[in-house]
Amino acid sequence: MELFAVPDLPEVRPGDDLAALIRERVDLRPDDVVVVASTVVSKAEDRTADLSSFPAGPRAREIATNLEETTGDEKDPRFAQAVLEESTEVLMESPFLLTESRFGHVGVNAGIDRSNVPDADLLLLPRRPSESAARIRAELPAERVIVTDTSGRPFRHGQRGVAIGWDGIAPGRDYRGERDRNGRELGVTVENAIDELAAAANLVAGEGASGTPVVVVRGFEWGDHDESDAHFRDVSGDFVRQAVREWEFEG
Amino acid sequence: MELFAVPDLPEVRPGDDLAALIRERVDLRPDDVVVVASTVVSKAEDRTADLSSFPAGPRAREIATNLEETTGDEKDPRFAQAVLEESTEVLMESPFLLTESRFGHVGVNAGIDRSNVPDADLLLLPRRPSESAARIRAELPAERVIVTDTSGRPFRHGQRGVAIGWDGIAPGRDYRGERDRNGRELGVTVENAIDELAAAANLVAGEGASGTPVVVVRGFEWGDHDESDAHFRDVSGDFVRQAVREWEFEG
Repeated sequence: MELFAVPDLPEVRPGDDLAALIRERVDLRPDDVVVVASTVVSKAEDRTADLSSFPAGPRAREIATNLEETTGDEKDPRFAQAVLEESTEVLMESPFLLTESRFGHVGVNAGIDRSNVPDADLLLLPRRPSESAARIRAELPAERVIVTDTSGRPFRHGQRGVAIGWDGIAPGRDYRGERDRNGRELGVTVENAIDELAAAANLVAGEGASGTPVVVVRGFEWGDHDESDAHFRDVSGDFVRQAVREWEFEG
Repeated sequence: MELFAVPDLPEVRPGDDLAALIRERVDLRPDDVVVVASTVVSKAEDRTADLSSFPAGPRAREIATNLEETTGDEKDPRFAQAVLEESTEVLMESPFLLTESRFGHVGVNAGIDRSNVPDADLLLLPRRPSESAARIRAELPAERVIVTDTSGRPFRHGQRGVAIGWDGIAPGRDYRGERDRNGRELGVTVENAIDELAAAANLVAGEGASGTPVVVVRGFEWGDHDESDAHFRDVSGDFVRQAVREWEFEG
């Protein structure tokens, strides 16, 4: 398996045809996995915004006040408003704002980015990243496309790449029913392959000025395993999520 | 960047010299990252055990009873005893047993494996995986070694590879202070590179009978970034962990 960055991509602007920018720079093969950072998808889809577009309502003002009290930093209630509009549930509102995004991804500040945008205050995540992946894939010779973000997580330090959209590939390799060399049933059941592909691509993509937002994974073999459609956990089986819902920060 | 499995490894047995088994099969280069599944490290280090070695004390019996009540399945209190002996804190005891392992890794059942062992009931994780990584590295031409496990996580479905031990490589690439193309400070601060390497290797390693437990990552470039030593989160900044501590399953 080999990974390489798509070279010399220009700064992406609203309306740019990402698939064309990629095609012009790499000879893709049908079984390549093309891994695209959500930042460039968002830029092409004109998902930049200014804080002035998010006049804060009562809930956003409550959250900003609460955050100011617990962190001691000034918080713009319009930013909280933007997060709320991008989210379907607030899981934790202090000491940081953890929500479920419109497409099921649990993360801080609904993944809204305040760096990476040249002429605006905010860069929102793509509206439906799997639909973005499908649109890009339709115009590429490669049959598998993943849209990624970077995200922190509980228990483990630092961020890692995660998949937030996908097309032409199932999220999980399903090992249920398979056995080890000694005929015992496997302990691992489903491997989230698209998250692992996103993490692998992030090692090559890097961040910042030297960052390369599109990475090709060549030679990834699915193997003779079933596919699993689940990518985000169901709430009913996510006990950590249930715990976070009930918890309140006390400073 | 390229990843390939070390071919034709035999079933690993207690006392086997893992580094020799790897060296005999691959021409390693100094800047290769050798990613070793903890299962084979544990087997070489004779970390198999039988349930009869873990006579259950009162706390293990309490946990097993509690688990039986919430899951409806029969639970062996000796297994709970083994998990407790491998752990430094119980974070959730029902509907599954989530603990911090002796070396800081938060996971279910202290990573104790009930498949993958030919002649015993249990396969425990290596006692100190970073020390295992250092021992392996000392006998290899490659200068970077990671020991991995697979693990589930909150919010996202399925398991992915994670690093539990490392030597010759820092856990994180630190982007703090760096700027994007437009001169704005980066939103991402620290990337957990060894977890991403573990995830990438898991795509190639697979599981079960066709699994290949050692993967070489060739051509991973750290780049001109600082290093971060943190791999597991400090509890004081891990609000999800604090929430989980306080939560109780109510069925």
